[in-house]
Amino acid sequence: MATATSVGAAPQPASRARAIPGSGIRAVAAAAWARPGAVHLELGEPAYDTAPHIVDAAAAAARAGRTHYGPTAGLPEFREAVAAKLVRDNGWTADLADPARVVVTAGGVGALFAAYSAVLDTGDEILVPDPGWPNFVALAHAVQARPVRYTVDAGTGGPPNGAELDALMTPRTRAIVVNSPANPTGAVWTAADCAAIGEWASDRGLWVISDECYDRLWFDEPATGMAMNAPSANVISVFSLSKSYAMTGWRIGYAVAAAPLAAAMTRVQEAVASCVSTPTQLAAVAALLGPQESVENMRLAYRATRDAALAMCQRLDLRYIRPSGAFYLWLQLPDTIDAQQFAFDLVERRGVAVAPGSAFGPAGAGALRVSLAATEDDVLNGIETIAAALEETQ
Amino acid sequence: MATATSVGAAPQPASRARAIPGSGIRAVAAAAWARPGAVHLELGEPAYDTAPHIVDAAAAAARAGRTHYGPTAGLPEFREAVAAKLVRDNGWTADLADPARVVVTAGGVGALFAAYSAVLDTGDEILVPDPGWPNFVALAHAVQARPVRYTVDAGTGGPPNGAELDALMTPRTRAIVVNSPANPTGAVWTAADCAAIGEWASDRGLWVISDECYDRLWFDEPATGMAMNAPSANVISVFSLSKSYAMTGWRIGYAVAAAPLAAAMTRVQEAVASCVSTPTQLAAVAALLGPQESVENMRLAYRATRDAALAMCQRLDLRYIRPSGAFYLWLQLPDTIDAQQFAFDLVERRGVAVAPGSAFGPAGAGALRVSLAATEDDVLNGIETIAAALEETQ
Repeated sequence: MATATSVGAAPQPASRARAIPGSGIRAVAAAAWARPGAVHLELGEPAYDTAPHIVDAAAAAARAGRTHYGPTAGLPEFREAVAAKLVRDNGWTADLADPARVVVTAGGVGALFAAYSAVLDTGDEILVPDPGWPNFVALAHAVQARPVRYTVDAGTGGPPNGAELDALMTPRTRAIVVNSPANPTGAVWTAADCAAIGEWASDRGLWVISDECYDRLWFDEPATGMAMNAPSANVISVFSLSKSYAMTGWRIGYAVAAAPLAAAMTRVQEAVASCVSTPTQLAAVAALLGPQESVENMRLAYRATRDAALAMCQRLDLRYIRPSGAFYLWLQLPDTIDAQQFAFDLVERRGVAVAPGSAFGPAGAGALRVSLAATEDDVLNGIETIAAALEETQ
Repeated sequence: MATATSVGAAPQPASRARAIPGSGIRAVAAAAWARPGAVHLELGEPAYDTAPHIVDAAAAAARAGRTHYGPTAGLPEFREAVAAKLVRDNGWTADLADPARVVVTAGGVGALFAAYSAVLDTGDEILVPDPGWPNFVALAHAVQARPVRYTVDAGTGGPPNGAELDALMTPRTRAIVVNSPANPTGAVWTAADCAAIGEWASDRGLWVISDECYDRLWFDEPATGMAMNAPSANVISVFSLSKSYAMTGWRIGYAVAAAPLAAAMTRVQEAVASCVSTPTQLAAVAALLGPQESVENMRLAYRATRDAALAMCQRLDLRYIRPSGAFYLWLQLPDTIDAQQFAFDLVERRGVAVAPGSAFGPAGAGALRVSLAATEDDVLNGIETIAAALEETQ
């Protein structure tokens, strides 16, 4: 054994890890967790617990010895349940909903990670929405790619302008992330919106990573998605059971893509995760194939909360984007207010936690995101508290 | 919306994904899964199901509504249970076993991924054992770093030679992976081995990623680890509940490191995973703090299987490394045999699946890895089948 006499410098974390920004949502959550009794409207966390038949399915599977490794891309019964759900709920054709195109992942974010890893090399660029879910940016840094923000329509959260997208293209652009129903604005794209963006991306040889984690949470018209509306596009569709089935704590989602990309994502997952929890996949099968009443009941409850929240905003003269899906309310504060400071003051002085818009990108600097997935009382009290705080601030 | 007239080229998966090699273990597993009744000695999969009190804890937690997101680094009760276990089972001091140094992950491989991401930038190099678990190499490709193999002692699987390690160093070397008890050789390093490698790495300013997923599976002398034996080294200790608690299918493990590195790993995990399953963490608390008899019973059963397997190898005149820990038997085939072809023939013609040594690196080219975690009957029958096939081949 060689022995060096000089002592090496203490190593530092990689610049990769240092480049990953902390979540501005979880920063407020941490402040709220430190304050017992705080009202949590900052996370996208359903007030509901997972339905008993789903919980029971996980327990029964584990009791029956389904506690062992499974195939990397997922248990056959999970991939088949997903295929059936895509036909039933998303209107997919059977060929698009082929179980062989499905890859199970640890939550929707696991699917996004597999997708980013499968299409992006170091230094590649990916177009991400602004405002948009913070992980779209953080994931790019995690794979040492460069996130390039495009602006979604400021008034509606609607689809981006093709000319603006073209102006952001470089030879390193590889993919665009789209998200409908959208976090944080609640915008829901039409079939024509999806087709137009799909055609734009296809013409430019780009991947479309379509985050459809809120696919079943629509308030006005049923949400549609990219895969069925943009047949020429190279779409990686990303779904989650977290929101629709109140399963945030289980960490289960899936990606659907053409065979070569599904294989690439599976290879990534084999390297970094081996496979996804077997009992959880079997709970997910019960969720996907079992009674769907609780999904519909939650959707209607969130819609009722939305309606009550919008009525209160009108009464209190607060500005907002009207959400047509997902379960968030995007409030626009007056220009004179520092929204981030306001959010931290709100949790510290008044015990109400909301997400500062700045967490979602520069376009969110003057906004707050209020979760509509909490109880209606909490949401309405939270909005009243915001209005009261604004009044005092001005 | 701009409309391009030229159609873009269909995009290809990133070179990152193409560089990740498929697992040579899972290739044999796929062949075995396609052949009902095959004997599975290729995966590191305990024949035991998860103990009932662990299964019950997950079910009770989920029934009680513990189905929601948790903190990225882990539930406080999980991190505290890990700290208690490290003191109780691994002989750690309380300061090393501080819950604040613990990060929960999806399996041991999730901890390795967080560690690789936290210490490696694109193009950096990491020293990995040969033969060694294939994911040590695949993970490097996943983060676009370069794996550089070092040879563990061919006769014993023991620690590498310092001069050989020095010869592999470049300005881009950032870390070394060590693994004791070792997969695939079953070698267990002594405290002096750990101290020597720790000092070597510390002197050169390298991170030590210490995979101790088999910490409680030792056959002769209790296994020790890096953190306690190399206090000057910058150690990231990686553990799993998969093997000790027969929890492979749940996907739960943890990393332990100094605060700045734990924070960096947490940031990576927040970006790519949000958090780890809440019901599974609570099952793990029951595993770590509940009755430990099943851990000891499994350890003794694996040791009995090892002893019976070694006796049979001696009787059949097979060459092997004597495993002192983990639960694998590393068989050396005659030079005239193509071990990889042999492994595929074995599963296809005789229905016995074992891992070809080539899956573990060039140093394993002439070897087979036989799991000792299956039932003793399966292991002994498998070894007899190997001997019979060798006899026919020669």
